[in-house]
Amino acid sequence: MGRRSLLLLLLVFLTPGAATPVPPALRALSSLHISTSFKYRPTVALEYSIHYIQQKVDHFGFNTDKTFKQRYLIADRHWKKDGGSILFYTGNEGDIIWFCNNTGFMWDVAEELKAMLVFAEHRYYGESLPFGSNSFKDSKHLNFLTSEQALADFAKLIKYLKRTIPGAKNQPVIALGGSYGGMLAAWFRMKYPHIVVGALASSAPIWQFENIVPCGVFMKAVTTDFRKSGPNCSESIHRSWDAISRLAKKGTGLRWLSEALHLCTPLTNSQDVQHLKDWISETWVNLAMVDYPYESNFLQPLPAWPIKVVCQYLKNPSVSDSLLLQNIFQALNVYYNYSGQVRCLNISETATSSLGAQGWSYQACTEMVMPFCSNGIDDMFEPRSWNLKDYSDECFKLWGVRPRPSWITTMYGGKNISSHTNIIFSNGELDPWSGGGVTKNITDTLVAIVIPDGAHHLDLRANNAFDPTSVLLARSLEVRHMKQWIKDFYASLGKKHGIWWDKG
Amino acid sequence: MGRRSLLLLLLVFLTPGAATPVPPALRALSSLHISTSFKYRPTVALEYSIHYIQQKVDHFGFNTDKTFKQRYLIADRHWKKDGGSILFYTGNEGDIIWFCNNTGFMWDVAEELKAMLVFAEHRYYGESLPFGSNSFKDSKHLNFLTSEQALADFAKLIKYLKRTIPGAKNQPVIALGGSYGGMLAAWFRMKYPHIVVGALASSAPIWQFENIVPCGVFMKAVTTDFRKSGPNCSESIHRSWDAISRLAKKGTGLRWLSEALHLCTPLTNSQDVQHLKDWISETWVNLAMVDYPYESNFLQPLPAWPIKVVCQYLKNPSVSDSLLLQNIFQALNVYYNYSGQVRCLNISETATSSLGAQGWSYQACTEMVMPFCSNGIDDMFEPRSWNLKDYSDECFKLWGVRPRPSWITTMYGGKNISSHTNIIFSNGELDPWSGGGVTKNITDTLVAIVIPDGAHHLDLRANNAFDPTSVLLARSLEVRHMKQWIKDFYASLGKKHGIWWDKG
Repeated sequence: MGRRSLLLLLLVFLTPGAATPVPPALRALSSLHISTSFKYRPTVALEYSIHYIQQKVDHFGFNTDKTFKQRYLIADRHWKKDGGSILFYTGNEGDIIWFCNNTGFMWDVAEELKAMLVFAEHRYYGESLPFGSNSFKDSKHLNFLTSEQALADFAKLIKYLKRTIPGAKNQPVIALGGSYGGMLAAWFRMKYPHIVVGALASSAPIWQFENIVPCGVFMKAVTTDFRKSGPNCSESIHRSWDAISRLAKKGTGLRWLSEALHLCTPLTNSQDVQHLKDWISETWVNLAMVDYPYESNFLQPLPAWPIKVVCQYLKNPSVSDSLLLQNIFQALNVYYNYSGQVRCLNISETATSSLGAQGWSYQACTEMVMPFCSNGIDDMFEPRSWNLKDYSDECFKLWGVRPRPSWITTMYGGKNISSHTNIIFSNGELDPWSGGGVTKNITDTLVAIVIPDGAHHLDLRANNAFDPTSVLLARSLEVRHMKQWIKDFYASLGKKHGIWWDKG
Repeated sequence: MGRRSLLLLLLVFLTPGAATPVPPALRALSSLHISTSFKYRPTVALEYSIHYIQQKVDHFGFNTDKTFKQRYLIADRHWKKDGGSILFYTGNEGDIIWFCNNTGFMWDVAEELKAMLVFAEHRYYGESLPFGSNSFKDSKHLNFLTSEQALADFAKLIKYLKRTIPGAKNQPVIALGGSYGGMLAAWFRMKYPHIVVGALASSAPIWQFENIVPCGVFMKAVTTDFRKSGPNCSESIHRSWDAISRLAKKGTGLRWLSEALHLCTPLTNSQDVQHLKDWISETWVNLAMVDYPYESNFLQPLPAWPIKVVCQYLKNPSVSDSLLLQNIFQALNVYYNYSGQVRCLNISETATSSLGAQGWSYQACTEMVMPFCSNGIDDMFEPRSWNLKDYSDECFKLWGVRPRPSWITTMYGGKNISSHTNIIFSNGELDPWSGGGVTKNITDTLVAIVIPDGAHHLDLRANNAFDPTSVLLARSLEVRHMKQWIKDFYASLGKKHGIWWDKG
């Protein structure tokens, strides 16, 4: 798989912030104006307050004492000072308000856990920009965008909240997060077990590094989703790549393709054709991530079980190239035009052109080096090998930095994490990221929850009438574990103070 | 306690490198010539090989890809590839060869544990200078001198050794260290449990931060040592401060004092008098640290139980000021002139004027902020309060940086470390640093070993015919724990590979 496509994959994964009408990037890079108008609105307005804390730009060096404002949200409607808890969302690569609005699970369980909800924005995303509009200027300004700095921000924020909010001091804190945020939640518990009593890491591909899992698992999982969602579906897609190539070679092929796919900008050369293929691949990947059982609007407005809808157009792989591509257009249209309002498809506009995209592109070029590949045999994509050298050169061109592919494993332990405790790894089997996740129990307190009908962190989403039983069960298990952690915390606090609690 | 004296205290603690004839500072800052001539030589020559590994200057940022050579030593005479282990010394603030020669315990147990010994030099000490002779130039060059960077060096080194030394890959690694090195060993196990199966943290004052322990415990412990080592001993010292002040105020007082104490450079003003007092205080502190049961040469060549010898000169506190000071001179002479070769005492020369001193001074001004105080009631010193503002201002003047006094606790958990496993905290009751150490079991696998007759990390020193029973017992317990960790490691490895080992 080529470099560009790889980056796109990562970006897809990690920049749901794109769903906001004004891309955070533009807001951030222009005026830092706080926009609170979001496309997605839950039916019940979520009540939270917005706060800021001064954080050191560099927790790991003393040459600069510069600080920046990190944004965080607090919702304490159901919080009880007596026997309560604090659920702490370890913000990932996007605007924290967007995550707050898309993590209904926390809101749903707040009352039961007597919990204060805290949503902490990840540095270099949303409004939490260490150098304001210069934050992405060059590798010097980006130097403090690492998972370690983000975890240190979280640690300092929790200490600050415990110190300043009356009643919070002696309460257990649980970290929660999804996707990269899920990795952060797990790593936070591993590195700061004195600060959080446990972590719910949803769809966290902590093993998608180095050669811990084969580089092909991701695209294979995407393919499986399509294979299972309709007869001949993955086969049709598999055939489409050569069909595109053949069509493109014809005299009027580029024009025909541009028209058949209703592209906003016509294709003009072979590079555009590659770009088109990457963009289509990305669309299938996105669909696999958000293959939710109900109408939703995570990366795009979509119908329930969107891959099934897509696959209705891809039942016959043995048609002519031109008919196949017309079917592909119908399929793409499900993703890009569910509203029916879109006039043409824009292949230079990904779902990820946002501030988050910039930040994640840098992170993928430094710490978050996830090898991906496809072989066209076990998956429905064109064969692409993983080439670290090319990847590194591209990173150097983009950001002036080179990736350190073994660093995450050195820092966070790779597969050797059994000495840690109290982490739930939940994964949906439909989610291509589950291939790099923990899907088997490691110990009694490092548990895996697998949701057969779940896509990307479905369990973190709000309760829905169309939720499959498997996700209801998963959520109920997660709550049970969290209650146990809370109970254990109060029991140990009681011991320390010579009293016994019967809370949680 | 004033700023200067505080820094001295810290330096004393942490710079045994001063015992080398050529201060590492001079070597490092001039020619980087490798001197292997050390004053201290064990009776049996220790066989080790010297190696270097390229380390990133900054593990936590990607703006620079600069590397430096970290030195480490390997001794594998007793190492067995079959069922063996790796004992890894987490180097602290000094030349690693000096630590290697002063950690006889590792050499004594190597055969029993079939162990390879590795001694890793701490960055910015000895030869492991990230910027060569510029390493201490300014806060920009010093920016990478932190405990986190040092631990990351260790982690990468161990991964490298496992990758490159045939037979090392599937062996358990145990971290060992004393003093600041003991803190590093403990923190290493806490942060990198996937890399080391356990840690022996000897005389590691991990709680000498913030207000975890009262700031006075240290000087109180020093005082107790003197109180117990001879009648009226601490009382004589307690009286000496006022005596010095009174004598200094007399017309010819400064001259008299300079002569009575055989000072190389006569005192000329009241600042000199304060300097004298600090220097004397430091001497008593040093003696408390190295109050070993046999002749030794850790900070200085000294007789067995040196405080007892010192106290023979300090039996009568009710003598005249001048007689008291003459006695104080005799006492100081035990420390500074056990060899009988010294013509005068040099109060501007501390036992700590070394490269280590520079590095530690910076570390004490950044992460390693240890509050100290004395009140003259519970201890034999002049009253000095802990004043963070003054401390910070002094640090800014010295290094252009300001300390972050709560960082270490945020990072490493302070007292809340019970979720970790397999750490032995050993402390000698004679050692003033034991006040900030872990002296009670926290859990079954976070155990404290207290050595009533031990000074500063006596247990890490080589076996000696004059060792008290308590240290023999401590070492035997330590070996038992380490054997258990090794056994557990092989058992879990066996499970993984479907075979059972019966090793260690």
